[in-house]
Amino acid sequence: MDKASWVGIDWGTSNVRAWSFGADGAILASAALPKGMAMLASPDYPGVLSELLTLLRFNAAAQDFEVLVCGMAGARAGWHEAGYLDVPADLAPLGRSAVRIPSSPDLPRVDILPGVAVRTPGAEDVMRGEETQLLGLLRLHPGFEGTACLPGTHSKWANISGGRLTGFATAMTGELFEALSTHTVLRHSMPVELIGEDTEAGIADGLAAGLERPEALLHQLFVTRAATLVAGKSQHWASGYLSGLLVGTEVATLAPANHEAPIAVIGAPRLQRLYCSALAKRGLQSITIDATEATIAGLKAAREHVT
Amino acid sequence: MDKASWVGIDWGTSNVRAWSFGADGAILASAALPKGMAMLASPDYPGVLSELLTLLRFNAAAQDFEVLVCGMAGARAGWHEAGYLDVPADLAPLGRSAVRIPSSPDLPRVDILPGVAVRTPGAEDVMRGEETQLLGLLRLHPGFEGTACLPGTHSKWANISGGRLTGFATAMTGELFEALSTHTVLRHSMPVELIGEDTEAGIADGLAAGLERPEALLHQLFVTRAATLVAGKSQHWASGYLSGLLVGTEVATLAPANHEAPIAVIGAPRLQRLYCSALAKRGLQSITIDATEATIAGLKAAREHVT
Repeated sequence: MDKASWVGIDWGTSNVRAWSFGADGAILASAALPKGMAMLASPDYPGVLSELLTLLRFNAAAQDFEVLVCGMAGARAGWHEAGYLDVPADLAPLGRSAVRIPSSPDLPRVDILPGVAVRTPGAEDVMRGEETQLLGLLRLHPGFEGTACLPGTHSKWANISGGRLTGFATAMTGELFEALSTHTVLRHSMPVELIGEDTEAGIADGLAAGLERPEALLHQLFVTRAATLVAGKSQHWASGYLSGLLVGTEVATLAPANHEAPIAVIGAPRLQRLYCSALAKRGLQSITIDATEATIAGLKAAREHVT
Repeated sequence: MDKASWVGIDWGTSNVRAWSFGADGAILASAALPKGMAMLASPDYPGVLSELLTLLRFNAAAQDFEVLVCGMAGARAGWHEAGYLDVPADLAPLGRSAVRIPSSPDLPRVDILPGVAVRTPGAEDVMRGEETQLLGLLRLHPGFEGTACLPGTHSKWANISGGRLTGFATAMTGELFEALSTHTVLRHSMPVELIGEDTEAGIADGLAAGLERPEALLHQLFVTRAATLVAGKSQHWASGYLSGLLVGTEVATLAPANHEAPIAVIGAPRLQRLYCSALAKRGLQSITIDATEATIAGLKAAREHVT
């Protein structure tokens, strides 16, 4: 095995994904396990890393390679706390702030990238993992300026200027959809199969409602339920409406009001379609970047500065 | 037992409460069971009614009294569907629209009051039980005109004019607090004991944030978490902030912008304090009515029109 090869890991809340890279940057192999930070205590991480390395056909004890980790493994409740950079944060030298796991005879060298924090009173915010994707965005689209949207469990809206992350805000959109459709009265209006005939109509109605009256979310949420009770709306409509309402509300609040440059939407294809459609309704242009490609490009760029 | 005596029941989602009344309207006894609509199928209701009647020292089989029910027992998934009146709904004759349970040798006469619906497309809404409290409000404050706020799991904001319920809107505030603090990342910031030293400061910060920027709820929710991570805020602050943020957002959206008459806040004392404080910050006056008193007054008033 090439001494110059290395392993990049995106260690999220629910899952962990790993890639091995050759000296030329080509992906040699990839692996994933449903063993995210939420299921692990700090002492569990070396064992899961060994599992990943075995899947990637690396021998952990050989130590002739290095590992770079981004994401929740660097949280206080993760493997080893990697702290936060503060905004405005220069993204190119992100790797310089990586924290090294104390060495051990069974482990290769492991560095964990920091997150980024906003400490403005009343608008405190944090990210872990998305900073690596934003660095990847700058690598994939050199000189990118403007707003990036990273939809998901916790959607991030980030401002990029001069290669720096100048500010960002999180919306709990994905997690709220999950909690509302599983743990509130709205669950009675949710379908067994997520997609059906009326889903698109529900999404369109929800997007319109959220974009028009983002301040009315607490009330409009209940329309999901009431419309199935008194207006004959189907469960597929309701599920689409809830999804569109949350995304419309998010975009109305966090998308820039006027924007010359297109917004970079970094995420999974289904979410990208939904967000780009909401942005278009506000007259905003967008480009899409696959989330995994952004993560991989970011890990590669960060590694150049790990010392 | 006086033939003129009767039993009033508020059958909610989680609990059921019952009162027996003498011919003069005085309360003879009260009873409550944690057997709400969510735990019952339709055939279970007669048995729970018998339990309640035993607690009230009535003999169900004697049939020499009547029972009037408001609340979720009249839902499609309740005991027996009691339908909805549409807004604008005249409240005084509410009892005339009660639905009678088919007679049975083991049951006294049981009538269930209807709910009220808004069928305006895009603003569909429903209530069950609150219409009885609003009728009670009109009995306790004859000639009441203006807005009533009924905070809770599903807060209701109702407009009363000329004795009629002219419109209303629901906010999922209480249920959202519960779902967020139990089933999302915010649970990591919630204290074991709800009230502590920083709770009031958290409530004040949350109220201010919600009142000022109701459109930013999806983002400000995450401040609950981030402020404990990067600004050293305590879990008691976080719990107070989440509560204040949701109530402030609700009041900013659903309280009338200008109002001559005081707003009637019908609820439990702790919630009344919170809502009256939010209303005061908007320059709005309020009066408080105990929720149980409103329910009892409403059941009495409704019964006069049951035919």
